[in-house]
Amino acid sequence: MIGQDIIDRFTALLGPKGVTTNPDDIAPWVSDWRGRYHGAAAAILSPDSTRLISETVKLAAELGVPLVPQGGNTSMVGGATPPSDGSALILSLRRMNRIRSLSAQDNLAVCEAGVILSVLHDAAQAQGRRFPLSLGAKGSATIGGLISTNAGGTQVLRHGTMRALVDGLEAVLPDGSIFDGLDALKKDNRGYDIKQLLIGAEGTLGIVTAASLRLVPAIATRAVGWAGVDSPEQALHLLRLTEKTLGESVEGFEVIADDTLGFVLGHIPGTRSPIETRTPWHVLIEVDHADLADPGPGERLEGALAQAMEQGIVLDAAIAANEAQAEAFWRIRESLSESERAQGPALQYDISVPVAKMPAFMVEAAAAAEAAFPGTTASSFGHLGDGNVHFHVRAPKGTSDGPAWIAAQGQSINAFVHDAVVAAGGSISAEHGIGQMKRAELARLSSPARIAALRAIKTAFDPHGLFNPGKLIPLPEEG
Amino acid sequence: MIGQDIIDRFTALLGPKGVTTNPDDIAPWVSDWRGRYHGAAAAILSPDSTRLISETVKLAAELGVPLVPQGGNTSMVGGATPPSDGSALILSLRRMNRIRSLSAQDNLAVCEAGVILSVLHDAAQAQGRRFPLSLGAKGSATIGGLISTNAGGTQVLRHGTMRALVDGLEAVLPDGSIFDGLDALKKDNRGYDIKQLLIGAEGTLGIVTAASLRLVPAIATRAVGWAGVDSPEQALHLLRLTEKTLGESVEGFEVIADDTLGFVLGHIPGTRSPIETRTPWHVLIEVDHADLADPGPGERLEGALAQAMEQGIVLDAAIAANEAQAEAFWRIRESLSESERAQGPALQYDISVPVAKMPAFMVEAAAAAEAAFPGTTASSFGHLGDGNVHFHVRAPKGTSDGPAWIAAQGQSINAFVHDAVVAAGGSISAEHGIGQMKRAELARLSSPARIAALRAIKTAFDPHGLFNPGKLIPLPEEG
Repeated sequence: MIGQDIIDRFTALLGPKGVTTNPDDIAPWVSDWRGRYHGAAAAILSPDSTRLISETVKLAAELGVPLVPQGGNTSMVGGATPPSDGSALILSLRRMNRIRSLSAQDNLAVCEAGVILSVLHDAAQAQGRRFPLSLGAKGSATIGGLISTNAGGTQVLRHGTMRALVDGLEAVLPDGSIFDGLDALKKDNRGYDIKQLLIGAEGTLGIVTAASLRLVPAIATRAVGWAGVDSPEQALHLLRLTEKTLGESVEGFEVIADDTLGFVLGHIPGTRSPIETRTPWHVLIEVDHADLADPGPGERLEGALAQAMEQGIVLDAAIAANEAQAEAFWRIRESLSESERAQGPALQYDISVPVAKMPAFMVEAAAAAEAAFPGTTASSFGHLGDGNVHFHVRAPKGTSDGPAWIAAQGQSINAFVHDAVVAAGGSISAEHGIGQMKRAELARLSSPARIAALRAIKTAFDPHGLFNPGKLIPLPEEG
Repeated sequence: MIGQDIIDRFTALLGPKGVTTNPDDIAPWVSDWRGRYHGAAAAILSPDSTRLISETVKLAAELGVPLVPQGGNTSMVGGATPPSDGSALILSLRRMNRIRSLSAQDNLAVCEAGVILSVLHDAAQAQGRRFPLSLGAKGSATIGGLISTNAGGTQVLRHGTMRALVDGLEAVLPDGSIFDGLDALKKDNRGYDIKQLLIGAEGTLGIVTAASLRLVPAIATRAVGWAGVDSPEQALHLLRLTEKTLGESVEGFEVIADDTLGFVLGHIPGTRSPIETRTPWHVLIEVDHADLADPGPGERLEGALAQAMEQGIVLDAAIAANEAQAEAFWRIRESLSESERAQGPALQYDISVPVAKMPAFMVEAAAAAEAAFPGTTASSFGHLGDGNVHFHVRAPKGTSDGPAWIAAQGQSINAFVHDAVVAAGGSISAEHGIGQMKRAELARLSSPARIAALRAIKTAFDPHGLFNPGKLIPLPEEG
C-alpha cells in the first residue's frame, strides 16, 4: 500500500479537495460496477485542470506510482478497477467536468473528460443539436471513459462509434507532456494519428483530458416500427432493403429472438408484443429525420415494410402510432438485459462478426453451445447492422448458485464462444474493451504480430508501465 | 549503391519478373511526378503476393536494406521517392493488383494495394456501387498509396477521407510479420487500433498489402449548382443552410475566388461563367441521391438556393439543366490548377484550418502574404466544408525564372504561410502528407509532445529505420 509520505506529496500539489483518502469515500471506486473486480487504493487524486493532471502525472512518474484513470466507473471489463495490492492510486477525472464550448453553428462541443454523457445530451438538446451516442450507463459514464473504450451503443449503425465522433483530443502522456489535438480539423495528415491511438486505449497510453465532439441536428421526427421475421437471415434482408429505400435515416436496427421477447413480456409488467403474429425473430427499427420538410419517416418506413412483406421477408409488422407507442417498443429492447438476468445465471458476451456472417452465427453458435454444454440455453440479441450482438449462455434450469456455476464452467464456455467468434472472423470485444477481464483471451486468440504491436506501442509511450497497469496489454506469462 | 550480390538474393526470392534492374525501366520511378525530387535505386522489387512481400521484408531486414514502398508514384510531397544515395530499394506494389472480392450486398470490396483507383471505381460501378473517394490522379494512384497518405479529394464532406472508408487492412510489418486485419468489423475494441495507425503512416510503419473498402450505392441522380456570393463568410452561411435543408446529400461544396475563375475562363477554351452576375466569390455545389424514389435533388437544391437568395446570402445562382452542363460546371473546378499554373510560377499549399475559421483565413492570409511579399498575389480555392483549401502565392508578374524565384523566396513564404496556418489552429498538411517536403516544417511547428510520440511509434515498429527512410519523421537535426 502506498504510504502517507507519497500521499502528502500529492496533497501539496492538489490541495485537500484534490485528494480523497477516507476509505468510505474511496470504497465505491475500487470495485467495478458489476461487483466482479475488487481493488485497493490509498487515495483518489482528482485534479481539476489539464495543467494539474500534467503535474500529477509528472509527480507520479518521479515517485514511480502507477495511476488508474477513472471516469464514471462503468467499465464492463474491470477496466477502471485498481490492482488489489494497493500499489496504484486512482486518478479521477470527475472534477474535469466543464463543457468548454458548444457551438450549434459548428456542430461541435468541446468537453472535458469528466462530463457525464447525459449532461452533454441535455446541453446539446438545449441548442437544437444532439450528440448521437447513447447507452444504458449514460447517467454515469463520462466522455473520457467513453473515448478510452471507444464506446458504441444503439446508434452506431448511423453515426459510428465514439471513434467517429471525436474530432479532436487533448491528453496527458505518461511523461506529463500535454498532447494538444483539440483543434477539430476535418483533414489533417501530419503523420501518425495519435488521436486515433488514444481512442480505445483504455487509459494505458495517455489520460484523455478533453475532446472536441461532433454534434448532429436534433431529431425532428422519428418513426419506430416492429417486424416479425422467420430468421436472422431474413432480418439481414430487411436491413439491406431498408438501407436501400430509407438510406441513412435508419438509426436503429435491433434483432430479438422470440424467446428473449418472451422473457420481457413475462417479466416486465405492462409490456405486450407490438405484433399479433408469433414469429421466431423480431426486428425493432427506428427511422429518424432532422428535416421538418421531410414528407415523413413514418410513411417511408411503412412503404419499406410493405415492400418487405410483399417480398416475403417480413411476416407481420407494426408501426408505432405515436410517441408513447414508440417508447413502448423501445422499452422492450431496453428491458432485455434485466429480463434475461431474471431467468437465472448467465454468461454474457460482447462480440462482433462481419455483418454478412452474423445471421448464421446467431443460429449456429447458439446451437453449438447448447450441444457442448448440456442443459444450457443460448441466445443473442442486438445490433445486427453493426455485426455486434450480445450473446448469452444461460445456466441449466434450476441452477441456484450462479457464482459456483460460473467458477466451474465459465472458462470452458468462454473459450468455446470466443473460439466460435474467431472462427467467424470476429472480435472478442465489440464494445466493452479488454480491461482485465479479456486480457488472457486476447493473448490466446491474437496473432503474434498483433500482440507484439500492442506491446511495442505500450512500451514506446509508457516504458515504466505507470498508466492503468494490468489492463489491456497481455501480461508476459499470457504469451 | 546497393551491390549485385544483394540484388541476386532478391532475384533468387522473387524471380526475374519480381526484380527490375534496367535503368530505363527504373528511371520513371526514382523521381516524383512533379519532378522536384530525384532519387536513385539499383532495383525495383515487385512481389505479387502478401507472402512474398513478407519474405522480401524479412530478407531486407536480414541484409539491412531500406525499402521505399511505391504505388502509383503520385505523391505531392516526395513521399515515394528513394534517397538519392541509392542506399534503398523500391518495393513496388504494382503486381499486387487484384480485387479479391467485391460484394454489392455487403457494400465491401477487398482490394490489393496496387489496384488503381479508377479500376476500383469501374468495378464498383459495374455492380451498382461506388467507391466514394476521387481525385485528379485517379488513373495512376493506387489503393495502398491512398491509404498510406489518408487521401482526401472532392467528396470528403460527405464520405470522409480514406480513413473513414477503410474497414479492414492487411499489412507487412518491418519484422516481416503479417498484420491480418482484413475482417471488416464495424465494432472491434481489441486494444490499440493498429489499422488507424497504419493509415496515413506513409509506409514508415508497415507495407499496406490489401484493404477492405466500404462502398456506397451508385449515384442515381445528381444536381449541380453554381452560386455567386460576396465573401467566403457568405459561402459558409450557404454551406450551413444547405446542410440544414439538404442534409447529407450535399456531396460537393467548392469555393472559388472570382479572379481564379477568371484564369480558367481566359485559359481554357469553351468555358464560361455559369452565372451572369459578376460576384467576388463563387460556390460549386453538388447534391446527390442514390434513391430513385427521391423527388429529385434538383428541386431541393433549387429550393435551398432560392432560400439563400431571399436571405441575401447568394447574389446569383444557376442550376445545371442537364448532365452536360453539370460536367461543364465541374470542368471549371477541375481546370483551376492548370489555369493557375499558366499564370506563372506559384507556391501551392495544401492546408486546413477549422471550418469556422476558414472564411477569415482565406481573406486575411492572402492579404497578409501579398503585403509581406510585395508583387505577389495570393488566393485560395477548394473544399470549404472540410476546412481545406489550396492556398497559392503567385510570383510577381513578369517573373520568368520560376525555380530561381522559389529558391530565393520559397523558404520565407513557406514559413509565413505555415505560421499563419498554425496561428489559426490548422494543419500544414491537409491531404498530401509530410513526405520529405514538409518534414522540417513539421518539426519546426509541432509540439515536442507530438514529435516525441511520432518518433517513439516509429522506433517501436521499425527500430532499424528500414521502411521509407527520410520520410515523415523529422531527422535528428530537425529538432
